[in-house]
Amino acid sequence: MSLLLGQIVDALGGALEGGARDTPIARIASLDAAGPGDLSFLSHPRYRQQLAASRAACVIVAPAMRELALARGACIVAHDPYVYYARATQLWRARNAPAPRGGVHASAVVDPGAQVHPSARIGPLCVIERGAQVGADSWLKSRVTVGEDCRIGARCIVHSGVVIGADGFGFAPEQGQWVKIEQLGAVCIGDDVEIGANTCIDRGALQDTVVEDGVKLDNLIQIGHNVRIGRHSAFAGCVGVAGSARVGAHCTVGGGAVVLGHLELADGVHISAATVVTRSLTRPGQYTGFFPIDDNARWERNAATLKQLHRLRERIKALEQTLQGSMNGRTPR
Amino acid sequence: MSLLLGQIVDALGGALEGGARDTPIARIASLDAAGPGDLSFLSHPRYRQQLAASRAACVIVAPAMRELALARGACIVAHDPYVYYARATQLWRARNAPAPRGGVHASAVVDPGAQVHPSARIGPLCVIERGAQVGADSWLKSRVTVGEDCRIGARCIVHSGVVIGADGFGFAPEQGQWVKIEQLGAVCIGDDVEIGANTCIDRGALQDTVVEDGVKLDNLIQIGHNVRIGRHSAFAGCVGVAGSARVGAHCTVGGGAVVLGHLELADGVHISAATVVTRSLTRPGQYTGFFPIDDNARWERNAATLKQLHRLRERIKALEQTLQGSMNGRTPR
Amino acid sequence: MSLLLGQIVDALGGALEGGARDTPIARIASLDAAGPGDLSFLSHPRYRQQLAASRAACVIVAPAMRELALARGACIVAHDPYVYYARATQLWRARNAPAPRGGVHASAVVDPGAQVHPSARIGPLCVIERGAQVGADSWLKSRVTVGEDCRIGARCIVHSGVVIGADGFGFAPEQGQWVKIEQLGAVCIGDDVEIGANTCIDRGALQDTVVEDGVKLDNLIQIGHNVRIGRHSAFAGCVGVAGSARVGAHCTVGGGAVVLGHLELADGVHISAATVVTRSLTRPGQYTGFFPIDDNARWERNAATLKQLHRLRERIKALEQTLQGSMNGRTPR
Repeated sequence: MSLLLGQIVDALGGALEGGARDTPIARIASLDAAGPGDLSFLSHPRYRQQLAASRAACVIVAPAMRELALARGACIVAHDPYVYYARATQLWRARNAPAPRGGVHASAVVDPGAQVHPSARIGPLCVIERGAQVGADSWLKSRVTVGEDCRIGARCIVHSGVVIGADGFGFAPEQGQWVKIEQLGAVCIGDDVEIGANTCIDRGALQDTVVEDGVKLDNLIQIGHNVRIGRHSAFAGCVGVAGSARVGAHCTVGGGAVVLGHLELADGVHISAATVVTRSLTRPGQYTGFFPIDDNARWERNAATLKQLHRLRERIKALEQTLQGSMNGRTPR
Repeated sequence: MSLLLGQIVDALGGALEGGARDTPIARIASLDAAGPGDLSFLSHPRYRQQLAASRAACVIVAPAMRELALARGACIVAHDPYVYYARATQLWRARNAPAPRGGVHASAVVDPGAQVHPSARIGPLCVIERGAQVGADSWLKSRVTVGEDCRIGARCIVHSGVVIGADGFGFAPEQGQWVKIEQLGAVCIGDDVEIGANTCIDRGALQDTVVEDGVKLDNLIQIGHNVRIGRHSAFAGCVGVAGSARVGAHCTVGGGAVVLGHLELADGVHISAATVVTRSLTRPGQYTGFFPIDDNARWERNAATLKQLHRLRERIKALEQTLQGSMNGRTPR
Repeated sequence: MSLLLGQIVDALGGALEGGARDTPIARIASLDAAGPGDLSFLSHPRYRQQLAASRAACVIVAPAMRELALARGACIVAHDPYVYYARATQLWRARNAPAPRGGVHASAVVDPGAQVHPSARIGPLCVIERGAQVGADSWLKSRVTVGEDCRIGARCIVHSGVVIGADGFGFAPEQGQWVKIEQLGAVCIGDDVEIGANTCIDRGALQDTVVEDGVKLDNLIQIGHNVRIGRHSAFAGCVGVAGSARVGAHCTVGGGAVVLGHLELADGVHISAATVVTRSLTRPGQYTGFFPIDDNARWERNAATLKQLHRLRERIKALEQTLQGSMNGRTPR
């Protein structure tokens, strides 16, 4: 299943230098793992030492790294080597595993009232309920549930175990018990969205939960009812977003972070891993909030002191006042 | 699928004022989203400004808001507008999607030794193992697994992807390896319990894991072996409860919180999102523990200082002693 | 389904003392729950008071507890009572539920190009894709997906809803959008691995994600692409491990912890629950980092002060300098 270097640049562009077009490439590999039959890439100048030591047949580099790369051997010069590498993986995938054809696996359960585009692919043991829609060229891998009236756009990838359109978590308290609020909205997912394994996106209470075009969600993410996620935002694994939160476009959320409900995150907000977002963030930027790891004994000491932090501040204030009084020749009360 | 205002009050009670019984209602909507064919609700006086501006055909309000509401147009006066709204959504659901009938979907795999009540509904691709029981009017949506000997009460809703009765996580260490402790208990779930998508409830080691009547669990929750969750408690998404913890009745746990094992939470304990419960909580109340979010640069400074917190306390103490000595005319050692 | 005490020691070893071999044992139970027909165990001397009060027919104890136990009644003296208990649960399971036979459930979807060992058991509604391999005596419970080319060793237990081999989360940013990096690696799982319900293990980008022999993973865990988990490590529920992290052998990770990407944890590292690992840990030991729980009002005060922690440190420093100057008879500037 090799490709020739010439075939790669013909397909993806870039300038092949210092090497022959008919060099066969067996696979793509990182700089340190690559062998003499492999294509590698230098995504950042800080890895330049690994470049020099790499045994790769050819390395994708940015124009600024061209001479350094040529001193080693063959290279493909490309504007953005990391994007070039991404497209090379797509070329490999297409070469080795022919693009899946549309169609519904015999074991899937698709309601007659659902609409699946002929070019969409519904994998084994999926469930597509009444009124649900799956757009052109979308691929539901296996064991995916798409609930009633939920809509998935074109060219989406939905990994195994995903649940789209379970009921949002809505109950009214009455005399110590919970009265169910039926969730009458649905889920609307745009085009080019990818959803990781076992992730859940709940249907809205009255209006729809919305995931806009180009959003990428990792595994085991919880998206509550009536959330809206803006275009091209990306969430790492195990994130939870509570009901009615609105996340802007081009945001990123790190793994295990929690976004509380009814908040608004501006476009370009970046949340670090394991951070709890408790208020709206109206300006782009990086936001963080988790307890720094330490060896357990030191953590215990600091954590215990943390519970007195407010009192420590009062003691500092008292010291300042005492000292100020002392400086002024007055005896503090 | 409209309902008339008269039909709504006939079904749910409350006093229709300032409007005609034959007004058709197309849907339920929030105050700001409602159009002239919609029913809305004022759940709290703080939203009264939205009430004045709402275009809703009719608004559900508490008695204290009656006059304000009548100044705008039609209203239904009800003791608890939020509960009334919840029951209205149920009316809508019943009207638009007829109550599901009992029965086992042809694609489900139900062991001949399982007991499914004739009025229970087992959705597509569920697995019900030997000795498992599902009570009257319970509904397992799709792709739910109920393990051997696990019991689900009446009127429960179990969303897609739920796993009830996987083995609890029990191993005995022996010479650097793990010896499996077979999990000989099961899971016992009461009546009127709702369980969110992809949530897991493990079977007990020796006795059963127990979820009492009326408990509501959101998506992607992990309930360890031998946990007991008291009546009418509610957990938001992504919560983890470790083995043998006992949560009281009428508790709430916020999203992403972690409850460690072998702890006891009294009735009426409320845990904030992302909080780690490391000790038993014997009094009702609200408990919290997560690092406050900040912009990343400030967080980094504070987090770095946090690691010296215990030493800062020592420095404050030293300052206090020095100053005390200085005040007393003594030179500190 | 009782066993006689004599049968138990014949199967598992240990010395039966103070009791008759023909005593029937109905079940295994904890010291406080055990009745007169039950076998119990004393795993640690700190529970010795429960031992004295237990109504168990027989108690498994360590040699040092022998006399104390005999004062109460029958006991089995064993080197490690907790391991003995574990093996007793296995005996019980084998007695009451005959070992599952190999075979593929009729409802499972197994690609003709997959290799399933004849002694492996593939439960209902599993999906085994092309090129995947399942080793001898492994048991996939129900609704498990094993993706293309992923390999599972011998004697593994994979609980319901697990997804092995979904795509790792890899995208290259290009002009505000995300270009998919096809994940060309697979997942390689060793022997004697147990994987909890709804856990996800992603396939590698270029090389494989690796889970070594004897690893135990609880429910709802996320393992990113190209992670390597060393032999006999154990992770509690809801843990997330980001891409390319390397966890050593004999590590433990508490529930809800997050391990960031491209880090290395040495053998014998133990991470407390809900801790965020942000740097490599090169020495064995216990590491912790979560905000201590408090009642909400106190937490709010301390959390607010925490945001000024860096400034508090500056104020302490200023106080120290002022006081030092004052001691030296100089007026501080």
